[in-house]
Amino acid sequence: MTDTVDTIKAGDDEQVVQGIAVTFMATYDIVQRAKEIGANLIITHEPTYYNHEDKVGWLAEDAVFAAKKRLVDESGVTIFRFHDYCHRRVPDFILLGMLEALGWQEYSSKEQPKSPLFVTIPGMTLRDIANHVKESLGAPFVRVVGKDELVCRRIGLLSGYGGVGARAIPFFHNDDLDLVIAGEGPEWETPEYVRDAVAAGFAKGLIVVGHQKSEEAGMQSVANYLRDRFKDIPVSFLGGHQALRVM
Amino acid sequence: MTDTVDTIKAGDDEQVVQGIAVTFMATYDIVQRAKEIGANLIITHEPTYYNHEDKVGWLAEDAVFAAKKRLVDESGVTIFRFHDYCHRRVPDFILLGMLEALGWQEYSSKEQPKSPLFVTIPGMTLRDIANHVKESLGAPFVRVVGKDELVCRRIGLLSGYGGVGARAIPFFHNDDLDLVIAGEGPEWETPEYVRDAVAAGFAKGLIVVGHQKSEEAGMQSVANYLRDRFKDIPVSFLGGHQALRVM
Repeated sequence: MTDTVDTIKAGDDEQVVQGIAVTFMATYDIVQRAKEIGANLIITHEPTYYNHEDKVGWLAEDAVFAAKKRLVDESGVTIFRFHDYCHRRVPDFILLGMLEALGWQEYSSKEQPKSPLFVTIPGMTLRDIANHVKESLGAPFVRVVGKDELVCRRIGLLSGYGGVGARAIPFFHNDDLDLVIAGEGPEWETPEYVRDAVAAGFAKGLIVVGHQKSEEAGMQSVANYLRDRFKDIPVSFLGGHQALRVM
Repeated sequence: MTDTVDTIKAGDDEQVVQGIAVTFMATYDIVQRAKEIGANLIITHEPTYYNHEDKVGWLAEDAVFAAKKRLVDESGVTIFRFHDYCHRRVPDFILLGMLEALGWQEYSSKEQPKSPLFVTIPGMTLRDIANHVKESLGAPFVRVVGKDELVCRRIGLLSGYGGVGARAIPFFHNDDLDLVIAGEGPEWETPEYVRDAVAAGFAKGLIVVGHQKSEEAGMQSVANYLRDRFKDIPVSFLGGHQALRVM
């Protein structure tokens, strides 16, 4: 790929790797934890500096950016973003991790090569699926549109920002889905489509997991993959709380 | 404005207005309610068809779109979107409504002409502010980053999608804010900035209200404004639940 965000974001790309920390996002806390366990390579799925392309010019005068940059520089870690290739792999690392965490491997169609992942499960209510998603993905809460008692069979799994309308909405119709489970997306798009669908009498639902918990199991899969291939290098997965909590 | 989404989205722009229904979004339910009360003009802040520009080509085969379009056509309502001018007005209708609903008028700086609205309140904890926001804006939940006990004084109010990082993050630094209260935004941007800020020892917080409840009070203000100016036409504000609920 010539146009990719999968680049080195900080540190020396020539240093010998002593340990790898795989994570959803190289937050301030994660950089500290990587240093504590002796990992000098962080592989992060999401950006380090609060925008998709990790541009930093707009943050030049920002004290939080300065503090984080200082921590990163002083800790001596190299940060590599593994995002585009992670999703481009067949099967998509992130969706595979999500599927496995949900325990729905047997329900996925074998032929499909990539995102979204369609599964056809035995009938299960939206309420029960929401609880299963919370428990299996470690999400403290999910946001839901649809009736608690809606029985879902055909489900589309979309990680991260896959909840965006242009991506998620066509699947409901084209693939006759009962339910989409997505990371996040603008509130005026897919949630409002599903709200209208329900009001018009269609049996549809939406579960918005949150970005981190929709992708963290996938990064755990990446850690497992690396551990198998680099047996002499300690590989750790660093998970944790998501940023947003509900009040 | 030559480039604006503030256009007629459906119906006849020549029909005589019998009644006006002002709302956050012309959902299926809102169109039904407008018809029931005899309003043949809906003024909506957000789009009707699940994307900012109300493009419909991509929905041509979609059954939910077809059902909604049928309802709109049969109900005979005209739908006008009032978004860009609504925010461009000085003071911004939406932020003014939010400010009044919060009861913080006396704390806002008089000089500032437009978004974001900065307020300097007597010290109040993040927890207490979150509860106040929920109660005064009618939000069933908010999402929060920061410590419950954080004492906030300098606050930036950003409605709708103002939580996007490129918009919200610079205010923390440039305007020395303790807290941003916003409608929504991508999770990997402002929430992660505030999470890093807290981890690095800065006293910062974020409250994500949800898009609808951050703008609904503003549309109530629009309804009040129209009621004052068109005394012969019944003007109703139609509010309601937001699409997403927490489980």
